[in-house]
Amino acid sequence: MTIKLYLAGPEVFLPDARGALDAKADMARAYGFEPIMPGDIAIEPAPTRREFGLRISEVDERMMNSADGIIANLTPFRGISADVGTAFELGYMCAQGKIVAAYTNIADGHFERSMRFYGGDAVKGDDGRWRGPDGIALEDVDMIDNLMLQGGVLRRGGHVAVHAAQPDRLYLDLTAFEECLTFIAARGA
Amino acid sequence: MTIKLYLAGPEVFLPDARGALDAKADMARAYGFEPIMPGDIAIEPAPTRREFGLRISEVDERMMNSADGIIANLTPFRGISADVGTAFELGYMCAQGKIVAAYTNIADGHFERSMRFYGGDAVKGDDGRWRGPDGIALEDVDMIDNLMLQGGVLRRGGHVAVHAAQPDRLYLDLTAFEECLTFIAARGA
Repeated sequence: MTIKLYLAGPEVFLPDARGALDAKADMARAYGFEPIMPGDIAIEPAPTRREFGLRISEVDERMMNSADGIIANLTPFRGISADVGTAFELGYMCAQGKIVAAYTNIADGHFERSMRFYGGDAVKGDDGRWRGPDGIALEDVDMIDNLMLQGGVLRRGGHVAVHAAQPDRLYLDLTAFEECLTFIAARGA
Repeated sequence: MTIKLYLAGPEVFLPDARGALDAKADMARAYGFEPIMPGDIAIEPAPTRREFGLRISEVDERMMNSADGIIANLTPFRGISADVGTAFELGYMCAQGKIVAAYTNIADGHFERSMRFYGGDAVKGDDGRWRGPDGIALEDVDMIDNLMLQGGVLRRGGHVAVHAAQPDRLYLDLTAFEECLTFIAARGA
């Protein structure tokens, strides 16, 4: 039986969303998987913007429910962390015990990016935790993003791929995505 | 039977994390709930930073599994969106069919904050979507953050509370948190 993979990530927001999603879908099929993605189904118009948003939420959750696994693109989006919609979806699939994998196209870890957020102005306190000038702690656990995300994947035997993409290919480079496909294909159903 | 609520949010990173968490726990108890929170259990040291992170992930997931519901603090954290760890946890609890509620201490919606991220330099294209100068689309669905988060809560009959806190009380103001407690208490188990 063909494994269905939900391909989560911020590609839906790109100028050529369709092209970016199709490239991922084609590659997933080449590895023997059935890709399922937000954006695959046209959402019917709704009376209000919020109701339209609720319909997308419903369609995407239904797709996740029908999928056997997820590959989440956790490349930082408009800031130092992953797209929160993708983070929600990764948590959703972890809770269902599905196959989980994730990747990022930025090689720097979460701690390094958090440091940069503070312009390097963070210090290690007596409690052993690094804190910015606002007193807010930086996670320093050698992971690509908040520990719930990478922890949720690794603790389920999933794979986290890291690749340093060229800046102009930040959301289009599929090297790390392909590494996730290879991992899941080797692992079997 | 007492309803157990997992209290998710970026409070764990605050200078006085313990005080902030205790204040939320006390208020939850006053409403008749049993609060469960990250930070409640001391995590044993581990050989590496990553293994330490994995232990926290495990403890937090176990707490969620034992909880009947979640109140997620989605107040923007180091950027224009919620803490991704909290987003993961909200998705995790939505997938389990638990009681869900969320709040933010910033009154501006996700669209307004995204606009500000681009300094107002976004335009509506022929496809009806707003895009920044980088071509990346802005969600415009009248929600407090990415539609998977608010959609996941509202579609399950949950509540989303919005309150404009004073900047120096951004992560400490409990007005919206209390609104969530009131909602869940009125709704019953």
